[in-house]
Amino acid sequence: MRYVVIMAGGSGTRLWPLSRQGTPKQLLPLVEGRSLLRLAFERSLASVPAERILVVTGAAYADEVAAQLPELPADNILGEPVGRDSLNAVAWPAAVLARRDPDAVIAQVTADHVIEPIDVFVRCLDTAFAVAEADADALVTLGVVPTSPHTGYGYLHRGEALAGFEGAHAVVQFAEKPAREVAEGYLASGEYWWNAGMFVWRATTLLEQLRLLLPATYASITELAEHPERLADIFPGLAKTSVDYGVMEPVSAGHGSAHVAAVALPVQWRDVGGYASLAEILAGDSAGNAVSGLSVAIDATDNVVVNADAGSVIGLLGVSGLVVVRTPQATLVARAEDAERIKELVAAVTLEAGPQFA
Amino acid sequence: MRYVVIMAGGSGTRLWPLSRQGTPKQLLPLVEGRSLLRLAFERSLASVPAERILVVTGAAYADEVAAQLPELPADNILGEPVGRDSLNAVAWPAAVLARRDPDAVIAQVTADHVIEPIDVFVRCLDTAFAVAEADADALVTLGVVPTSPHTGYGYLHRGEALAGFEGAHAVVQFAEKPAREVAEGYLASGEYWWNAGMFVWRATTLLEQLRLLLPATYASITELAEHPERLADIFPGLAKTSVDYGVMEPVSAGHGSAHVAAVALPVQWRDVGGYASLAEILAGDSAGNAVSGLSVAIDATDNVVVNADAGSVIGLLGVSGLVVVRTPQATLVARAEDAERIKELVAAVTLEAGPQFA
Repeated sequence: MRYVVIMAGGSGTRLWPLSRQGTPKQLLPLVEGRSLLRLAFERSLASVPAERILVVTGAAYADEVAAQLPELPADNILGEPVGRDSLNAVAWPAAVLARRDPDAVIAQVTADHVIEPIDVFVRCLDTAFAVAEADADALVTLGVVPTSPHTGYGYLHRGEALAGFEGAHAVVQFAEKPAREVAEGYLASGEYWWNAGMFVWRATTLLEQLRLLLPATYASITELAEHPERLADIFPGLAKTSVDYGVMEPVSAGHGSAHVAAVALPVQWRDVGGYASLAEILAGDSAGNAVSGLSVAIDATDNVVVNADAGSVIGLLGVSGLVVVRTPQATLVARAEDAERIKELVAAVTLEAGPQFA
Repeated sequence: MRYVVIMAGGSGTRLWPLSRQGTPKQLLPLVEGRSLLRLAFERSLASVPAERILVVTGAAYADEVAAQLPELPADNILGEPVGRDSLNAVAWPAAVLARRDPDAVIAQVTADHVIEPIDVFVRCLDTAFAVAEADADALVTLGVVPTSPHTGYGYLHRGEALAGFEGAHAVVQFAEKPAREVAEGYLASGEYWWNAGMFVWRATTLLEQLRLLLPATYASITELAEHPERLADIFPGLAKTSVDYGVMEPVSAGHGSAHVAAVALPVQWRDVGGYASLAEILAGDSAGNAVSGLSVAIDATDNVVVNADAGSVIGLLGVSGLVVVRTPQATLVARAEDAERIKELVAAVTLEAGPQFA
């Protein structure tokens, strides 16, 4: 049977003060009142019913996840007591689902992007499921067809087409985040896709690669699936590593016992990592302001304005090119061109105002 | 006996959102945690004891005034059920005090300025009291010795010196707010002082001028002093007019039975009417930001930053020349050079967001 696992960890410092340690960006009502997690859940419902969707998140966020996804069975939320990087966010649900269903085929999807159109995404996911079902040795990755020479993503170099599956290819190799010129060459070649961090595989296939490549992780994670009450003991002891570094790259290089395939994902794939990208998904007014929540503007143009403090108003007068954000605990006023430096500001706020604001 | 009446009405729209309909600027903790009203009260205590200080304010603000001035007897707060301009804010306390003390000499002072040095102010007020005590026909006004050709104030043209009272002069006439060139001429002449809207007179002398010049107001205000329980009946029926227009200008022109004198007030007299003037009295940081309340700044210069929302922080990143204000109900972000246009923004906020924010 098919399952979808949504990965919803991370804190999203670049969206401070919307995102804070207690409220990572995936849980914020950024898109017409819905969170990125909720959007990912609704996309997943197009593939499988709610009882076959799992969410991997920080233990501290489990209650909020349950509140946002009332359709989700409580057992389907896996709360990590500490962050242990992406490898364990795929290994743990694989071990859990292999016990529930030895034939489980899992799509691991992210929750920090806005993806459009959704029907294309659902169709590609269906193809990836079909590849993994047809080939018990395949680890399938979704490759976003690039629309720009982005230097912030890893890439994958696709090889020959897999007959019978539209948009499916073998993978020649994974490539790290490239320099600008390299990325431009990738884009021009048409042979490189963004590594979206989304995968489809049989639970047993992934676990077998773990057994071969990372036996300590394999032992711990199967122990955890058998004894969930030992979570607090076992999880902190897991090695911190990424799924790319721990599994996908070694397998694509011939280690392990599987091989890597990729399915093209020709969608708008917007990483809502900062205010510039958030602005693209917010409603715009006639003066070029991207707006969410209650605000009033006079002679104000090209601002990103987010009011996430119910019962308050933001008034703008004569300002341009700013990011203005209000939450119950904080107000941010930044030049848009400095918005990528918000981590510096969060560090200063932590030091000068106190960690409760960070 | 000497009395001081502090006038603390008005809403101060130019300080929105700090000042709102429910909290006029005089009641805001603008100066190191103290309000302008509190500062005016403390200045007054240097002249008379608390039981001889009265506050005229809007009825809606009476509780807040009492909270800020716990030393003040409850009977000494005169709450106007509706605003009826400055004439009635001097006539009502004069009628009340004339009944308590037929020899009352009253200093009417404002609460919307920061005045320094205080000892000079106290000494000048003492001189003005002495003039009014020595001359039962004198209406004494305080004339601020101008430091700039300000076009936002009325002026008074002083005449000959009054022997025996330092800085006291007769007044030739009152002048309306002047054009720039006229104001420059006033400043150069040395014979014109700003009309500070602060006066000293015997209660009976003022009431006699009212009887002669404005008999209907006189009748109503003496009726009110005798029957304070009829406040809601009588007060709304009073004609709306200013003390300058109703009394000072006619008397200086030879009407009534008194004459006008002025005492020089050589002080820093800062009208905290808007953010530019507020900035002058706030603490400055090394980057030229004027700051009140909790905020953290990186690469931010020459901003006015006021955080009046306890439990929150303002973070600034890369911005210059802004006014940034946070209250529990609103956030203002304005270019400093547009700060005089805040009334327009308040009107738009009222219309688009609702009157509860104005």
